[in-house]
Amino acid sequence: MILIDGKKVAAEMKLEIAAKVELMKKSSKKTPHLAAILVGHDGGSETYVAYKIKDCAEVGYKSSLFRFEDDVKEDALLNKVKELNEDDDIDGFIVQLPLPGHISEQKVIESIDPKKDVDGFHPENLGRMVIGLPSFVSATPFGIVELIKRYNIETSGRNCVILGRSNIVGRPLSILMSQKAVNATVTVAHSRTKNIKELCHSADILIAAIGVPGFVKGDMVSEGAVVIDVGTTRVKSDQTKSGWKLKGDVLFEEVADKCSYITPVPGGVGPMTRVSLLYNTLLASSGEIYK
Amino acid sequence: MILIDGKKVAAEMKLEIAAKVELMKKSSKKTPHLAAILVGHDGGSETYVAYKIKDCAEVGYKSSLFRFEDDVKEDALLNKVKELNEDDDIDGFIVQLPLPGHISEQKVIESIDPKKDVDGFHPENLGRMVIGLPSFVSATPFGIVELIKRYNIETSGRNCVILGRSNIVGRPLSILMSQKAVNATVTVAHSRTKNIKELCHSADILIAAIGVPGFVKGDMVSEGAVVIDVGTTRVKSDQTKSGWKLKGDVLFEEVADKCSYITPVPGGVGPMTRVSLLYNTLLASSGEIYK
Repeated sequence: MILIDGKKVAAEMKLEIAAKVELMKKSSKKTPHLAAILVGHDGGSETYVAYKIKDCAEVGYKSSLFRFEDDVKEDALLNKVKELNEDDDIDGFIVQLPLPGHISEQKVIESIDPKKDVDGFHPENLGRMVIGLPSFVSATPFGIVELIKRYNIETSGRNCVILGRSNIVGRPLSILMSQKAVNATVTVAHSRTKNIKELCHSADILIAAIGVPGFVKGDMVSEGAVVIDVGTTRVKSDQTKSGWKLKGDVLFEEVADKCSYITPVPGGVGPMTRVSLLYNTLLASSGEIYK
Repeated sequence: MILIDGKKVAAEMKLEIAAKVELMKKSSKKTPHLAAILVGHDGGSETYVAYKIKDCAEVGYKSSLFRFEDDVKEDALLNKVKELNEDDDIDGFIVQLPLPGHISEQKVIESIDPKKDVDGFHPENLGRMVIGLPSFVSATPFGIVELIKRYNIETSGRNCVILGRSNIVGRPLSILMSQKAVNATVTVAHSRTKNIKELCHSADILIAAIGVPGFVKGDMVSEGAVVIDVGTTRVKSDQTKSGWKLKGDVLFEEVADKCSYITPVPGGVGPMTRVSLLYNTLLASSGEIYK
């Protein structure tokens, strides 16, 4: 069994990105610039945005943070988005979700210029991805495909079962895994799927993205399968300083020994998600998606 | 075995649309207006566009046809698209494909205002469909889902295998069939898929969209399955006046008796494709997709 080390791969990718930024600065005097919009003071959002800014600094990007209070009017936020769309110095930007209830997240996402939508949430980027055009792919699906590639895991013609059909993980991932570059035979399972145990058993590659801790048990996985665990549910723990720990969708202790490859939680898919945003920002900066 | 009569369902839908148009004309003096751009004189394209114009007349729509010669410059075509985008009298329009080699089809498609893209080919419409927002769905996937609905075929939790991953049929259909409104467990098979026979056997609903006449044979289908045949390959025939006939992807004579439902070719999916465009034009005219 090989433990897929997302932390190590993400660190490698960061070094690769930093090297490219160095070259870019020398040859074109250009520095990639990521901006983030943060509304309110939610603890999780604060942490995620702080990580993104730290990541930017580590690979040599410029970053900018624009903060709004919880009671910001939708119009004010949309104006900021418009301003960033038009600001030539900013290559890409994100609006940290969730937003307060009085603001339409979908409206905000759709107001972002697709060319700067480094989160890959705009329908135009999703649609381009579906038809195989260059696009910004959202962080988690991109990170997973990259992990599979970098571990040289055979995918062509292999059965891939994806548990979960969310708009930001299961659904886009199912499309990517099924396209010619990957060529897996993909099944998307969800809450209405029958015989889920047998289905999981048929998977050469099983990807769990449902947010139910320990859902995938030992008797659901075939000998030699590749198992990717996207779950990151916080559960209470008296073994950690913070009082909680992350639990994946896979019951690691039952499943790991049967696998050819498996991602741990934490340290598997998670670190890849962070580096994906850096990667998309580099693409935005070099104009490689929308030519 | 129930033969799914696409011709009959399409005729019913046309009557429903015509009734809505009558009401619309009375209440708001508005008449839906579909425009088509046709480049060159390809026989197939001429026929398809003529059908579309005839269909419009039958349900009471206005229609306009704009013709260009084969050697039209891309810019001239893009200008026409821009003009139709801005013409308030036109609710929706299509550019008949294929286009001559010197013109980028993708560029033309992306220049169409998504709000008037009644073919549903613009990435923004595809992306909106993926995340479950109202969108113009392309004709064949829409027509198939409508057939399944109107025959009250149970889909929730049932295994649906789709043969083919094309951008205009297999891929969008796989997304629609897997969404909450349909709730099937969907597998997309393609040229690299292994054990295709066993996979087809596992299908409660088998949808063939690969364009290989007679690919699905009797021993590939389970007793009681629903079989939808999207194939429409022209093959030579000395039994018809035209010298050819349409062949589906399913070997009807071997498969039909095992099915609970099956679509014939012709007269199954085909007629639904034509009515789908009318349906999308009505949606465009009433502003129900982009509010």
